[in-house]
Amino acid sequence: MNKKVVNSVRETSPLIHHLTNQVVMNFTANGLLSFGGLPIMAKAEEEAKDIAKLADGVLINIGTLTQQELRAMITAGKSANRKGIPVVLDPVGVAATAFRTSAVNQILNKVQPTVIKGNAGELAHLVQIPWETKGVESLGDGNGEEIAYKVAETYQTTAVVTGKTDIICTGINIVKNDTGHPILGKITGAGCLLGSILSACLTTKDPIEEQVLTAVEFYGTAAEHAVNNSDVTGPGSFIPHFIDALSLDVDELLRGDL
Amino acid sequence: MNKKVVNSVRETSPLIHHLTNQVVMNFTANGLLSFGGLPIMAKAEEEAKDIAKLADGVLINIGTLTQQELRAMITAGKSANRKGIPVVLDPVGVAATAFRTSAVNQILNKVQPTVIKGNAGELAHLVQIPWETKGVESLGDGNGEEIAYKVAETYQTTAVVTGKTDIICTGINIVKNDTGHPILGKITGAGCLLGSILSACLTTKDPIEEQVLTAVEFYGTAAEHAVNNSDVTGPGSFIPHFIDALSLDVDELLRGDL
Amino acid sequence: MNKKVVNSVRETSPLIHHLTNQVVMNFTANGLLSFGGLPIMAKAEEEAKDIAKLADGVLINIGTLTQQELRAMITAGKSANRKGIPVVLDPVGVAATAFRTSAVNQILNKVQPTVIKGNAGELAHLVQIPWETKGVESLGDGNGEEIAYKVAETYQTTAVVTGKTDIICTGINIVKNDTGHPILGKITGAGCLLGSILSACLTTKDPIEEQVLTAVEFYGTAAEHAVNNSDVTGPGSFIPHFIDALSLDVDELLRGDL
Repeated sequence: MNKKVVNSVRETSPLIHHLTNQVVMNFTANGLLSFGGLPIMAKAEEEAKDIAKLADGVLINIGTLTQQELRAMITAGKSANRKGIPVVLDPVGVAATAFRTSAVNQILNKVQPTVIKGNAGELAHLVQIPWETKGVESLGDGNGEEIAYKVAETYQTTAVVTGKTDIICTGINIVKNDTGHPILGKITGAGCLLGSILSACLTTKDPIEEQVLTAVEFYGTAAEHAVNNSDVTGPGSFIPHFIDALSLDVDELLRGDL
Repeated sequence: MNKKVVNSVRETSPLIHHLTNQVVMNFTANGLLSFGGLPIMAKAEEEAKDIAKLADGVLINIGTLTQQELRAMITAGKSANRKGIPVVLDPVGVAATAFRTSAVNQILNKVQPTVIKGNAGELAHLVQIPWETKGVESLGDGNGEEIAYKVAETYQTTAVVTGKTDIICTGINIVKNDTGHPILGKITGAGCLLGSILSACLTTKDPIEEQVLTAVEFYGTAAEHAVNNSDVTGPGSFIPHFIDALSLDVDELLRGDL
Repeated sequence: MNKKVVNSVRETSPLIHHLTNQVVMNFTANGLLSFGGLPIMAKAEEEAKDIAKLADGVLINIGTLTQQELRAMITAGKSANRKGIPVVLDPVGVAATAFRTSAVNQILNKVQPTVIKGNAGELAHLVQIPWETKGVESLGDGNGEEIAYKVAETYQTTAVVTGKTDIICTGINIVKNDTGHPILGKITGAGCLLGSILSACLTTKDPIEEQVLTAVEFYGTAAEHAVNNSDVTGPGSFIPHFIDALSLDVDELLRGDL
């Protein structure tokens, strides 16, 4: 975990344009604010270009996608590419329906993502590796490294396969992260908020490997930290403490303060 | 309360397709995850059929309905009927506007709900029994049993009239539930999340009377349990503890653990 | 702070029709319920008139505006004007895009707001006073009084410029409020929920200066109260305690109970 990445986010308060799903908007906005970024969740196609002018990064998450929102996502992503700011794509549930598969294909045809992140089932689907999923959840356990390599290569991007162990492939190297806690699987939007934190970390001047690894390590460590709070008695009470933990300094987090 | 119903949900993690209102999506998803189900909140008509193929149940809640979402609700409901999985209809605020009344009529013309749940004002409106409402709230106190019977008979469904006492009519019998707490009236989406828990319970192999009664009893008992937590000082702090309580075993809940 | 205003809201439970952004719906609904109002968040244009018939006030917040929602906002606002109930306009991020600027102009051409509230950057933009903003956030520090006067005069309304010091101009007088806490800037929707509390206070029979000042003073004092709770360790744990504090009596709040 690179303190510099986290501190840079807090010094610059990057504005992240979220085109994300309705289920997690509030949680994501609060999590990013706590971490040190600024969310803007404009979703109209008409203003996607104007927002891109102001934004420092763009997050595209298709969790509750509609046809109308797809257009705004593509416009925002293209504008971000032109401006040279990072784009994170989170293809939530892409394997579940033809509509999502087609939408992600359309996005990938027009937008160059800096990072594609998702669970193994989602990213496997993007590169035609067989995988079992249930709705938006990924089941089974397989070769995450193969998936990460193939996504990075196919889409000329950095791939982040989330799971018990997160696997990051920048195209050349594979790095892994083991921080995190199973309780993240019992709350909605844990992966979605990670996409937002990732987008913020990608706006710093550090190498992408440092940025991505720091984002996932920090996120998982914050979850471990929050779950140890004696006031946490289940997923409901975990949420506010997790959001609190996202505001800590790297040192506080590692010492286990709070 | 039938432990078998709750345990079955936890063993099978049923995937519930939610076509629900934007106000409660996050709360509902977290509540269902805590209880043991899996939410998917796809709302595009284009993918409603594909999602139905994966889903174990469908929840239709019209709280922030638009014309576009209505089409997705009908497609999802019809697909669920064909597949033989349960459909719960929550006609939120149906009495408030002609748009909602017409929407619910369209749904009921094309979709056979397994359960219709709502407050007395909403269900009274479906069977033309006079009732006073204020927005989405039901006022007054009347013959809930008559309403439940008439809804069950008219729509060949199981009716759940929620209130201080919940009244359930499977068409033949009336059963009642007195668990719950007035604080549920001070948070948004208490009824909506119950619809989600109900949908999950309907996916087990138990008799419908057991499923429905267990859902409402468990839900009300979880509220009573949470409100007794010494950290709860109002509706805001009640919410996380209520979500926690939804994850408890029936025995823990009845013993008052936590 | 005028106790009468707060008590009147709690006696009458005003129904506030919210046409608001998707990020804050749940937080806003829970905050208003805790304070004593009733939220209804219908967003379809088709039912905007019917909802206005039931409503005691209307809140228009353009945070995640779409073209479709704009039509519903205008219909709801016009219906409220005809009925003589208060309308609050919160032009979130109006300076950020041409789409928002145009939307707010359309609203202001057809709807007479009782109150326009926003941060200095948003309200400055409405009266062509230069101001620096970042996304939906207002930066810098300038002449809030000039902005408030000019908005009140230009739009024949009461202007509320929120910030470290809130500045209220009813057209004649300027009044100020210094309650509040910086943590409100670390959670999403703090301004949005204030719009909702304001709408509820505007439904009482008190003079508008009393209504508006009470709303902002109460709101800021509730934040101060919540942040002092020993269970609050960051913005995540602040939220539930803030919602709790909104339910307190004015006396409890001022004494610092809980």
